[in-house]
Amino acid sequence: MSVYEESLDLHASLKGKYEVKSLVAVDNKKALSLAYTPGVAEPCRRIAADPDEAYRLTRKWNTVAVVSDGSAVLGLGNIGGLAGLPVMEGKAVLFQEFGGIDSIPIVLSGQDADDIVLAVRMIAPSFGGINLEDIAAPKCFEVERRLKECCDIPVFHDDQHGTAIVVLAASLNALRLAGKSLETASVVVCGAGSAGTAIAKLLLSSGAKNVVMVDKKGIVAKGESWMNASQAEMAECTNPEDKHGTLADAVRGADLFIGVSAPGQLTADMVRSMNEKPIVFAMANPEPEILPDEAKAAGAFIVGTGRSDYPNQINNVLAFPGVFRGALDVRARDISEGMKVAAAHALADLVASEATREYILPEAFDKRVAPAVAKAVGAQAVKEGLARI
Amino acid sequence: MSVYEESLDLHASLKGKYEVKSLVAVDNKKALSLAYTPGVAEPCRRIAADPDEAYRLTRKWNTVAVVSDGSAVLGLGNIGGLAGLPVMEGKAVLFQEFGGIDSIPIVLSGQDADDIVLAVRMIAPSFGGINLEDIAAPKCFEVERRLKECCDIPVFHDDQHGTAIVVLAASLNALRLAGKSLETASVVVCGAGSAGTAIAKLLLSSGAKNVVMVDKKGIVAKGESWMNASQAEMAECTNPEDKHGTLADAVRGADLFIGVSAPGQLTADMVRSMNEKPIVFAMANPEPEILPDEAKAAGAFIVGTGRSDYPNQINNVLAFPGVFRGALDVRARDISEGMKVAAAHALADLVASEATREYILPEAFDKRVAPAVAKAVGAQAVKEGLARI
Repeated sequence: MSVYEESLDLHASLKGKYEVKSLVAVDNKKALSLAYTPGVAEPCRRIAADPDEAYRLTRKWNTVAVVSDGSAVLGLGNIGGLAGLPVMEGKAVLFQEFGGIDSIPIVLSGQDADDIVLAVRMIAPSFGGINLEDIAAPKCFEVERRLKECCDIPVFHDDQHGTAIVVLAASLNALRLAGKSLETASVVVCGAGSAGTAIAKLLLSSGAKNVVMVDKKGIVAKGESWMNASQAEMAECTNPEDKHGTLADAVRGADLFIGVSAPGQLTADMVRSMNEKPIVFAMANPEPEILPDEAKAAGAFIVGTGRSDYPNQINNVLAFPGVFRGALDVRARDISEGMKVAAAHALADLVASEATREYILPEAFDKRVAPAVAKAVGAQAVKEGLARI
Repeated sequence: MSVYEESLDLHASLKGKYEVKSLVAVDNKKALSLAYTPGVAEPCRRIAADPDEAYRLTRKWNTVAVVSDGSAVLGLGNIGGLAGLPVMEGKAVLFQEFGGIDSIPIVLSGQDADDIVLAVRMIAPSFGGINLEDIAAPKCFEVERRLKECCDIPVFHDDQHGTAIVVLAASLNALRLAGKSLETASVVVCGAGSAGTAIAKLLLSSGAKNVVMVDKKGIVAKGESWMNASQAEMAECTNPEDKHGTLADAVRGADLFIGVSAPGQLTADMVRSMNEKPIVFAMANPEPEILPDEAKAAGAFIVGTGRSDYPNQINNVLAFPGVFRGALDVRARDISEGMKVAAAHALADLVASEATREYILPEAFDKRVAPAVAKAVGAQAVKEGLARI
């Protein structure tokens, strides 16, 4: 039986991957009068007088909504919110398993940016954080930016920032093993959608100077007419040598290739054209930009993928549970660029002393990860004045 | 310690009255590949091909959102969505306890009718039903009507219809004990807001011919200038004798008084002015329109209140868990007037054979209630072609 058939059977037998449990029995009049009317009026009055009391008197402190319009689900494309629900339930399961977070899947009936922003803003008070998921680029940039402006709780598009955090962590350890540094490395990001853009931005925030982005139509560079608004913006802060051309032109002499694009994009010849000790992160799923064996044969010093059946799996699950755990723990108003950088360093540091070319990141099921990331993220929020406790 | 202080302590110790539990452990690569990527792609594809598959492959089949803008919370008035969250969590607890339903509290940051409709329509795909709660009249009428038009799942404003169902059930048994019938009884509904309006409508749907509504400014009657649009509409289908005047004018000669208004509205003299064997449901909370002892002393044959410390408690919890359980069980598209009438009859029938003047309804904790109501509601949905299985 294939993994798809087996998963279908699992879903049909579970009929949903989460449940909501009451934390209080209301099987007698006294219990009802305390959990509900008339007693419940008192916590309501306290919150009306001081909204922060909601963190102390309701479940807001530990809840994260996983919100999607289903416009870019896995490799399935735009299948709509409802059809994306099994993915969002899966994400909720991971929040619970790795972060101890009560996570609620919210799939949307519409895909208009204005409608998404309004809906999420309207439902935000119930939650301590909003995880946006599987929303297509470039709409995801606008939706996230506007929600961050109007919500007083963290809004985090995991496809962008979760990926970026784990890639930054992997880059830090891999470059160190290669005797290089982020500041001086030449980095190519292949795929200028949501993940690629967030990766490039986070690398730049962390000290990288030479990042070149490449999309289907070529290198993201000033003056190219095919770029969307987000790519045009990235052309301003990346590509310092003003390269124009193809992926092959971009990777020539590069130290680090980061692929969030499509299968087979990177050829062995391209790897051979990179600088010495080249690092290749080929994260297209399920088929990477180049297979690890092929990259190694062409001289790659370190290879990472998104897959669990090769070493160096670069998996979002290493980031988002700890990031939200840390943000919730300090009642953060936002997840800042600094908090993401702190998360990446915590993740890299966790295995830095024992890192090898086949072990640049913790394993997905390493239980030390979420607490370490949470601690760093919470501390950074406090440092930046974004915490409410 | 007062019930309010005790409730505050309970809320502070629980830090929220519900939790979200994962139904699948993802503690190894195989489990992750089935509950999440890559296996989860298959249930997504199935739902994309046939949306009804969401009821079989996700938690949609058992989830109800409890949505409020906090504009009319208990007796606290307009305290806003966030401050209403303890009430909505309490409601979620009751859905779980009495209906076995996964219920998620959703409190809103805005109170504009257009925004509420859009937000609820947007998040609806995650749920099998929407329970609107504590939304002020007359806005609640418009919000519910528009949502029922655009959502393919049941939308039910409990303050209106839950109350109406239980009042109808209580009326059926009380009138029978008094040797009267709904068809010939003269009924006064005191309070022409959301609950009063829904009660009047459901009584009319069930055969009542003579219903008079009264609000703060007097009897709801054609030509009165103080009425809002909803009250003007009710003036067309109630008050067949075209009475004008005060509550005292309305109740003179009436068989049944139904109060959903404010403390002390009904005087002993008014009770004495009613028809023989008068029935008084004084449901203002926590202080009723008239205290039961006073009503009895003035000749009331049967008295009901909203309180658990007197006989004949008329409590919504007798209706909403079973109504949604029944609607979910048949994947209903809507909750119709007929389904509400069926719910009331099931509720009344449950105790009809053993009913007394002090036992016209089942107790709030009677475990037979929700299954009996659910069965009747589901059967009626099937009969009306509103079921999807």
